[in-house]
Formats: sequence, structure tokens, C-alpha cells
Amino acid sequence: MGKRKIVIIGGVACGPKAASRIKRLDPDAEVIILEKGELISYAGCGLPFYLSGQISDYHDLMNTPTGAIRDPAFFKAVKDVTVFNKTIAEKVDRNQKIVMARQLETDEILNFPYDNLIMAVGATPFVPPMEGVSLKGVYSLTTVDDARQIRDKQGPLKGKKAIIIGGGLIGIEAAEAFARQGMTITIIEKLETVLAALIDPEIAYHVQNELKNQGISLMLGDSVTRINGDSNGKVIGVTTQNDELEADFVLVAIGSRPNVSLAREMGLELGATGAIKVDSRLRTSDPAIYAGGDCVENINLVTGKPIYTPMGSTANKHGRVIADNICGINSIFKGVAGTGICKVFDINVARTGLSETAARREGYDIITVLTPSPDKPHFLSDAKLIIIKLIVDKPTRKLLGAQVVGPGDVAKRIDVAVIAISHGFAVDEMSNADLAYAPPFSPAMDNIIVAANIAQNKLNGIGEFISPGEVKAKMDNKEDFIFLDVRSPEEYEQMRIEDSRVKLIPLGKLREKIAELPMDKEIICFCKISLRGYEAERILKAKGFKNVKFMDGGVICWPYDKFVQ
Amino acid sequence: MGKRKIVIIGGVACGPKAASRIKRLDPDAEVIILEKGELISYAGCGLPFYLSGQISDYHDLMNTPTGAIRDPAFFKAVKDVTVFNKTIAEKVDRNQKIVMARQLETDEILNFPYDNLIMAVGATPFVPPMEGVSLKGVYSLTTVDDARQIRDKQGPLKGKKAIIIGGGLIGIEAAEAFARQGMTITIIEKLETVLAALIDPEIAYHVQNELKNQGISLMLGDSVTRINGDSNGKVIGVTTQNDELEADFVLVAIGSRPNVSLAREMGLELGATGAIKVDSRLRTSDPAIYAGGDCVENINLVTGKPIYTPMGSTANKHGRVIADNICGINSIFKGVAGTGICKVFDINVARTGLSETAARREGYDIITVLTPSPDKPHFLSDAKLIIIKLIVDKPTRKLLGAQVVGPGDVAKRIDVAVIAISHGFAVDEMSNADLAYAPPFSPAMDNIIVAANIAQNKLNGIGEFISPGEVKAKMDNKEDFIFLDVRSPEEYEQMRIEDSRVKLIPLGKLREKIAELPMDKEIICFCKISLRGYEAERILKAKGFKNVKFMDGGVICWPYDKFVQ
Repeated sequence: MGKRKIVIIGGVACGPKAASRIKRLDPDAEVIILEKGELISYAGCGLPFYLSGQISDYHDLMNTPTGAIRDPAFFKAVKDVTVFNKTIAEKVDRNQKIVMARQLETDEILNFPYDNLIMAVGATPFVPPMEGVSLKGVYSLTTVDDARQIRDKQGPLKGKKAIIIGGGLIGIEAAEAFARQGMTITIIEKLETVLAALIDPEIAYHVQNELKNQGISLMLGDSVTRINGDSNGKVIGVTTQNDELEADFVLVAIGSRPNVSLAREMGLELGATGAIKVDSRLRTSDPAIYAGGDCVENINLVTGKPIYTPMGSTANKHGRVIADNICGINSIFKGVAGTGICKVFDINVARTGLSETAARREGYDIITVLTPSPDKPHFLSDAKLIIIKLIVDKPTRKLLGAQVVGPGDVAKRIDVAVIAISHGFAVDEMSNADLAYAPPFSPAMDNIIVAANIAQNKLNGIGEFISPGEVKAKMDNKEDFIFLDVRSPEEYEQMRIEDSRVKLIPLGKLREKIAELPMDKEIICFCKISLRGYEAERILKAKGFKNVKFMDGGVICWPYDKFVQ
Repeated sequence: MGKRKIVIIGGVACGPKAASRIKRLDPDAEVIILEKGELISYAGCGLPFYLSGQISDYHDLMNTPTGAIRDPAFFKAVKDVTVFNKTIAEKVDRNQKIVMARQLETDEILNFPYDNLIMAVGATPFVPPMEGVSLKGVYSLTTVDDARQIRDKQGPLKGKKAIIIGGGLIGIEAAEAFARQGMTITIIEKLETVLAALIDPEIAYHVQNELKNQGISLMLGDSVTRINGDSNGKVIGVTTQNDELEADFVLVAIGSRPNVSLAREMGLELGATGAIKVDSRLRTSDPAIYAGGDCVENINLVTGKPIYTPMGSTANKHGRVIADNICGINSIFKGVAGTGICKVFDINVARTGLSETAARREGYDIITVLTPSPDKPHFLSDAKLIIIKLIVDKPTRKLLGAQVVGPGDVAKRIDVAVIAISHGFAVDEMSNADLAYAPPFSPAMDNIIVAANIAQNKLNGIGEFISPGEVKAKMDNKEDFIFLDVRSPEEYEQMRIEDSRVKLIPLGKLREKIAELPMDKEIICFCKISLRGYEAERILKAKGFKNVKFMDGGVICWPYDKFVQ
């Protein structure tokens, strides 16, 4: 190979990854990274953990596991990669193959000729054009500098009031971080649920519950119209459509937008999502130019359509694929399943593929499953609840999406679903998966297998079911039915749905008390989690009751008012 | 459907599962379970947790999650399944389709006609024909009764000496349980490593280390020739090939054998492994008779050959598949990946597919990967090490096997590997898997993805590598080479391989000190985990050194003598 010149614009995730691998594959290559900020190769996803104080020194976000700081000197000495930080790429001449960049400290313009250019220019938090967004004390959270401003430049955070605009991943991670600092937090989200782009309402319900339990105020279905400041230009609060709130801090966390202005100026093709369009080798419309990370769109592996889902994990994978292709290895990036995971205080929530909302919007004919159960055998004292929701395509039986929430181990189950969804598996292919079993790790039938089995039952027409949302709609419509709780009286005392339609007959007594139930009325059975509810439905059907269903997920998954002792 | 009669022999896992599902699918079916023991439907895999005291009441092993005990009355009232416990099936007339069973308490013979029979007769621990196996104080661990004998019938366990014969899964789980009871434990294993049927020696090394750290004595490569008793018929110790040991208890845990005597008498076909042979619908050679659980063999999804791997998880899946097929649902059990997982005090170990040993024995042309790294970003204080070993088929690039060990989250990574192996994925299909990423759950590039990437590199001829075992063999052969440690001096102080061939040049200094290295000598680079070792190999190769390799897994994975501060 000749001594090729590779210029990389962007030094956070995709860029340094591509640079390092190019040098490993082709040690003769000349690799240059241009980064507009001071810091390079840092773990952006770690910022909330710096904010919270769990990471005390921000340099840890840039350290290798053995403590070397990944700064320009490190990249030179170890990788033989030249980094120009505080250097902004201003113009690219694609004909001459030259990047013109300005060194921010000297204002000097430098020219960097390239054989291949990599655009790894990232994304910028979206800040709406709203009154007050420039006030002191209004932040977003994308760079180490943002996090340092908030944590280190304002005096003690304890006792301060924070308003977070946006109930997405960043907003929720920041809420936990602020709470750990002893702040008082309100999240304002214009949609009716948190994480609405990612998870369905009955899963979001558990996240919202946890936030409330941890003392976070939630204002859902409301939006900030103005950020208010004092005469010193310091934020003092916000005005929403319905309210007015005081604040010492405002964090704007309503999503981010790909940085495409340079790409647009260069005439590179943008995709339907507005991000840079790339092929499966991450090549832009200019074959000499690759792009990866938060500035590009990906293919959604379920729908085959473009999707914009900026993720640090994807950015790293992109970097590797780009390096491979530049160095002659045929490496393909097929797309993403749209996976996300988040710790919310003492619970975890994860998702992949399509939500029910998205699947319906896309026109899929689906069934859904909602099943709660402990993440290991209940006889172990550290067993914790997780709730799995599956979204399954009826005609093909393919798994389209999965969501998992609860205090237990959600990551393992979502990762299994990720692989299944990425490869278009039918739920039938998950039923007998030989997943690792020993009591400290899972029930004998892993939760995700149970969920797949329930999906199979539904697809096969075994057991008639109804979702909590559908039951609630019947209630709101004043429909008459028997809402048959088949739990024990003790369980009923602890937690129950308080409604005149509810009738308690423990499953063990159902066969003997069956005469108490009218044959001509709709009966909806439920228990704690849905298993006994399903058994009750089976028993009643066998005894000639026609209009019987069981409610998915039982009282545990009932996302509406319920009595809890 | 007519009112069919189903008789199930065996009431622990597969049997009750099949019974319950048959009644849900066909409420009119008459379902009878015959169980020779008193207890039914218990979690056999929970026995070590009863032994240890983590479960205080053995009934918890039979409880539903909401506290109902799954006894015959429960099965009758809730499931309409009739259970005859303490009833042993003695003879089956396949022509007449009748099971003849003896009620153990009354000696009465009962006849049970069937349309379909399910053999779910389980396995029995293998006890070798050795002097002393019948002494008081010699146990195996398969039934609740075994566990109760050991824990509840002998007075306090604290301070007692236990010898465990067999270093397999049961032996190791029992060792931890005994240790929690304050006993002194020796494991005697005739092979050179623990879990030898499951994992390769360099993974077993970490398990052995943990056992030793927890005060368990290991006698590897030795075997018990005689169990010794006193004049009261009570065990007092064992004699091994090399030693003589005292003991208050002896646990025989050298594996189990499928219960096939009845099946053999009935003339059902047995498979190559000695277990009952079944087709993919779990039907035996008699089409009216199904079999599942610990008494049958499965198909190994990697090799396509029969394998005997009794597992509670598999037994439950079998029960469901059998019920489906009896009730007219076309349900297939393709086979198992051979997955296993075990908690060993503060570390976890898991495996699936073929071990390196097994793959070589089967004649595969393989590469292996050995890669240690933290299970989440190192900047989080609860990040814990895991070591992943992959076994990959060179010609097809398919993943054949995976092993994961360490204090961190091994279950998630092994389950991803299970799905990949079960579907014959090439490692290339794992590289860009959109696994769930946020710092509390995984590094940006999940460990299993990194392992797949290393496998890709090796398959693509990028980076020349050598395993720790091969390096050790060179040392033992007194070969001359430079064993280049590229870590920092501080890391070297803490942990190092002490050998005259070792030379320390930190990676950051390698480019400037390169002249210190001879071009004509073999150089084997390593660091803590292998990443810097790999970089060093790349640097030296680029500078014209020809005979350079890096050692898989670094000093962390070096399973031989090393200095640790």
C-alpha cells in the first residue's frame, strides 16, 4: 500500500476508533484527527456519572483502563496518530481533496490534503428558539465542558432546584445524577409519558413511578414556553403552558441533531432523517469520504428504513467498519435494532426494535405480550421483578420489538431479544433457546422464553387475552363485566384494583365456586402476574363459559390507579 | 377431541410441566402423574441453596411464587391433574397401553391405561462400585430428601469436614453451600482441572483460584479408591491414590446417569449416549410414548450429534413441547447448545457450545480468542472483570463455543453467544450487534463484541498471536525469545510473570526504545489484557520485525505461576 493520508474530522468516539484501527491495519498510513474541542476520545455516555459525583475526576472519562490519558500526546506516542485539537474544519474542497481548518487559539488556517476523509462530527443538543435559553444557568449535556460547568463552576449543588426540559434518556440520567447531588428536580415533558419515543405507556408507567418514588417531580403533557431570568442574566425559573416554576438550573434535554452543516456545504447527500446518508460500508455520496457516529443515519433492521439513533456504542462500531473499508477489508454495517437501556435509580429499563406505538404506526398487524416475573427463582432472596413486553408480527410470527423494565436484570433479556430481532427470528425460535440456567442467574424457564411462549400461545389462539389499556377503556365506557381476581385474600389485601366489577375467587377455589359466576357476562380474569389469570381463563372456557379473557400482566402491570398497602 | 388419557411417569420437572400444559390445551384430558417420591414439582437446582441455608424451608422449593405449595392437592384443585406420589411405575404393557404401578406405602398394584405415556423418569447420581459408598455420612445430592438428610438430620454442620468427590457443577455448588455452613471442604477430582467436561483449563484456572481463595482444598488429578468407616458404619474418611483424608461427610458428585431401566425393559430405543432416544417432537421409538427431561438425550446444535446434558431448564422446555405434540400443536425441540452456568463464590463461570478440547477432538480446524476486560466502563467503581474465550471454526468462521469467567456479568454474554451458536452464526454477525449500551450495563463495545472482533482479526490474519499454553510450552522447552511486557512499571510491580525472558518496555516508549530489541529473535508481546500487546505487535511488525506475536489475554489470563503483590 502507498502511504495514504487519512483526515478525520471529529475526535470523540468514531474518529479516534477509526484512527487507531487504521494505524493497526496500515502502519504506514498518515492519520490526522481534527477536533474542535480541547478534549478527545472521551466517554460522552459517562457524563451523567461525572455530574452525579460517581466519577470524581473528569480525566477518568478519557483514561485507558490502566490510567493513561488519551490526549494528543498519547495518540502520537502510542498510536502514531496526529491530533489537532481546538481546530475546526471549516471547508472541504472535494475536488482537490483538501480540508481547510482553523486553529481556534491562533486563528491560523491549516490545509490538510487527504486520500480518504472521515466525517465523525457528531451531534448537537437541540435547543429550541425560546426566550431565555441563553441565560446563565441554562445548560445542555453533551461535552465534558458542559458537565464541568454544571458540577464544578457553580458552587455546591446540594439543595439547588433543577428543571430538566425533556423526559428522554439524557433527561432521566441527568435527573438521577442531580438527585445524587441532593438537588430538587422537576422533569417537564411535553408528551404524556417519559421516554415516549422509546417505550410504550404501560412500560413508561413503571419508570414514572420510580422517578416519583425517588422524589422527582414529573410534569407530563406540559411544555416550557419561556425560561425566566433575573436582571443579572441568571436563570430563575420557567413558565410552562400550565404553570410557573422556580429554578436555579435548567437542563435542556430534548434530543440532539446531527451536525450536518459542513456536510451540506460540501454537497454530501443527507438522508430522510436529516443526518448524513451512508451506504452499508459507511461511505457517503462521495466515495472518498466516509462518515460515522452521531452525524449519520442508520438502517432500522426491523423496517429497513432509515433511522436516526445516535449512540456511543454505534459510533465505535462505525469507526471500526470505516477503518476496515479504507484499509481494504470488506466490512459491512447492516444497521441497528434501535436498542437503548437506562438505569433509573433502582430500576432498569431497556428496549429494542419497534415499540407497539411504532409498529402500529408502521402498519404492522401485531400481538403484544406483557409478562412480569422474578428474574431468578423466587426462592432466592435477591430475586427481583422484571416486566417484559414483546411486540410480534402476526403474519410472520417475527419478533418486532421488546421492552423490559424493573429492578431485576433487564440487560440480559434485552440483548437476547436484540439478536433475535436483528436476525428476523420468529418467537418460535426463542422458545427453546438453551439459555444459561442456574438459580443465581435465571428461572428454569428464562423470562424471555416465557414471554416468547406466551406470544406463541396468542399466535396459536390459545387463551383469549386483553391488555390493561383495553380493560381500562371498557371501564371508562362504563361497560359491565366481571373483573375476576383469582389471587389469595392476602394478596388482595396488599394490592388491588378498586372497582365494583372486581370479584375475588382464588384460583384454587375456582372449580368449586364456579356456579357463582354468570355464564352470560364477560369475564376478565387476572392475578398478580397473569399466569393464574390464564389458568382461570382456561378453566372457565373448559366449563363452557364463552366470553372469558385474561388480562396481560396482572395487577403488577396495571398502570392505573390501584390500592397498594 | 375425545377424552384422552395421559399417564406421566415422573413428577419433578418435565412431568408436571407437561401435565399442566396438557390441561390448559385440552381441559377434557385425563392426566395422571406417577411419582415414586413423596414430593413433586420441586426445583432440584435449588437444592444447593437449601443446603447452604440460603433457603430456610425446603417447602420453598415447591412453592409457587405466591406461596402455594405444589403438592398433589394443589395439582388436583388448580390443574385438575391427579398425582399418585410414592407410587412407582414397575411395568408398561405397550400393546395394551397400560402402566402397572406399585403404591409404596400399601404395596398395592394399580393399573393405569393410557393413550399417551410420558416418560419423565429423570436421572440418578452415579455412585461408583467402591468400598464404603453405603456408609452413613456418604451422600449424593439429587432429591430434597438428600438435601434434608445432609442439612437437617446430622446436627450442626459448622466445623465439620466434608469431602466432595467430583469437581463438576454439583460438586462446586455443594462446596459453596458447605462453606456457607462453616464446613471444611476438600474437592477431589480425578482430572487435572475442575469442570473439565465443560471448560478449558485456562478458564478452569480462575475457578480453581477462587475455590482456593475461599479456603476450599482442591486435590486434582487424584481419585478416591475407598471410603473408610468406623465400626458403627459411619464414614471417617477416604483413601485416594495419593493420600488419606479424614471426613465427617462425603458427597459423591461425579455425574448422573439417565434412568433407563424401565425404558429398556419396555423395549424403547436408547441412544448412543445411553439415554432414551427421542425425535425432535420428543417421541420415543413407540409413537404413543414421549420422553423428556434428564432421562433423554438431546441433539448438540453444533455437532448435530447426540449429547447427554441433563438440565432443569431443558426438562421444562421438553415438558411443554411434549404437551404441544400430544395436543396437536406442531412443536419442535431442535436441540441444545450445551449451555451451563455456575456461581462459584464471588465469581461466575459459564459455557456453551464446544470447548476447545471438544472442538479439537471433533476434528474442527479452529482459532481461539481469550480476552479479559471489565464488564462495564472502568470509570464506574462497580466494574468487574470478565474473561471471554471463544472457539471459532476457521473455514466457516462460525462460532463453535464460548466460555466466560470472572466476578462480572457473565450471564448476559453467554446468552448472546448461545443464540449465535444455536443459529450457526459466523463471528462476523456478532461484531456489529446492537447490544444494549449504557455505562451501568456494559462498555460501549460490549465484551462479547470485542471478543468477536478479535476473532475476526485472527481469521483475517491481522495480528499474529499465541496462546498462554503455547508460550508456556516454549518456556518448558527452554526456547529463547523475548517476552515483551509493554505495561507500565507500576503495573509490573503489582503483577508479573517472573522469567528471565521478560523485558519491560511500556507501550508509550516502544517507538523510541525500539532499537533495544533485536530484529532476529522471536518477540512475544503482552500487557495486562492483550490490547497493548496487540498494539506492540502491530508497531514492531510495521518497523520490520518479522518474528513477533502477542499473547492472548495478557498477564491476567496467564494461568501459571506469576507474582502478585
